[in-house]
Amino acid sequence: MTVYLVGAGPGDPGLLTVRGAELLRTADVVLYDRLVRADILTLVRSEALCIDVGKRAGTDTPDADRRQHEIGQLLIEHGRTSAVVVRLKGGDPFVFGRGGEEVEILEEAGIDWQIVPGVTSALGVPGAAGIPVTHRGLASSVTVVTGHTLDSGKTSHPGHEPNWDALARTGGTLVILMGMASRKAVAAALVDAGRAADTPVAVIQDGTTPAQRMVRTTLAGLPDVDLGAPAVIVVGPVVDVAPRAPGAPQG
Amino acid sequence: MTVYLVGAGPGDPGLLTVRGAELLRTADVVLYDRLVRADILTLVRSEALCIDVGKRAGTDTPDADRRQHEIGQLLIEHGRTSAVVVRLKGGDPFVFGRGGEEVEILEEAGIDWQIVPGVTSALGVPGAAGIPVTHRGLASSVTVVTGHTLDSGKTSHPGHEPNWDALARTGGTLVILMGMASRKAVAAALVDAGRAADTPVAVIQDGTTPAQRMVRTTLAGLPDVDLGAPAVIVVGPVVDVAPRAPGAPQG
Repeated sequence: MTVYLVGAGPGDPGLLTVRGAELLRTADVVLYDRLVRADILTLVRSEALCIDVGKRAGTDTPDADRRQHEIGQLLIEHGRTSAVVVRLKGGDPFVFGRGGEEVEILEEAGIDWQIVPGVTSALGVPGAAGIPVTHRGLASSVTVVTGHTLDSGKTSHPGHEPNWDALARTGGTLVILMGMASRKAVAAALVDAGRAADTPVAVIQDGTTPAQRMVRTTLAGLPDVDLGAPAVIVVGPVVDVAPRAPGAPQG
Repeated sequence: MTVYLVGAGPGDPGLLTVRGAELLRTADVVLYDRLVRADILTLVRSEALCIDVGKRAGTDTPDADRRQHEIGQLLIEHGRTSAVVVRLKGGDPFVFGRGGEEVEILEEAGIDWQIVPGVTSALGVPGAAGIPVTHRGLASSVTVVTGHTLDSGKTSHPGHEPNWDALARTGGTLVILMGMASRKAVAAALVDAGRAADTPVAVIQDGTTPAQRMVRTTLAGLPDVDLGAPAVIVVGPVVDVAPRAPGAPQG
């Protein structure tokens, strides 16, 4: 009996891994996030139990914490009684997916687990849209960070906030997840730390799906971008490498 | 006629994407890096032309530049004459894969291209080994950087080196690719910038393959790690989240 934490990739079912697809086809129980698209779930056997555990609990609100606790209980319950349990998460389970917390719960309960990495939206969404997150002479590193700690009114963990000043000065590309609500604060923090206001920015909503929308702007223009979540924000000159980028693959 | 830049993932053939596997099965021409394992190439049709274009050209040596130029010429030649050309790269084409440079060449030649992202070794190797690169309270960002600019004697691009001081102070996890040759300089740069000498470090060689070897140490101990390339170096407290990590998946 094993619980497999499987990354579903950024959206396009073709970007699920071969191993992830195999596990979905053999699973007895699948617990999935709302970020996982319905067409990926068509792989699951009709006899399998499929449980929607709500939206990906990436934030630190009390609500998300309660939901995360419930997910832990479900993982233990099914991990003890079913041969193949798949915990399916959008993107990669260990890139802002709270997969580490679920692993801790499984360890404590003595349940076997395995990680099947996925293509993280943070890199796969810009990539499929033609934006190379690293590029010689333009970006020698890439940092993935969430913007949600900059949301006003959200509880946060003092001492564990991203250091936006250092992030601005790495010399590399920044990819911001969950940053649409705080895009004004993100842009201000980066400009305050010395990034030019005309630094190229791309915002990609529903990346790698037929609903994909992309806006190219600058840090100065980021607050005015009118796209919804889930969106990936890419900051740096790499945004302009291939301006005639292809559309999203139609998986 | 389209050239597909496809990420082969970190090593385990099960971590190739469904779309990547489909393209390999239909390709007329496949140009692959030496980092791509032979078992992934078994997917290619026997009638297809398979070209080994040498080791992944991630470094800035004149030799790598010459090889990269030759790859560009091959992409143009086959991109003009074959229906489905797959450029297969270890990991993800846009994460230190020089994919952006190949896209620029294809754009200039007027050849259609598309990116099929892959699981980058930078995140997939730690992930499969049970190390969550982000974790609440421990790491609110993850940065991927190469160590090769710290190699003594390598040509480099002044003004485009990673800012190791800022990288050390992001408050997040650092993942260093191509860092084994320069591991002493990497450790020194991070400690000089304020990271504690006892910061946990994991080094994973041949990750996600049956040959995987992992060593857990600290920044102080990194110079003494006796593993070879290709290896992924993970720096940060996330290394200790799940000490009884599972073995590599046997794809």
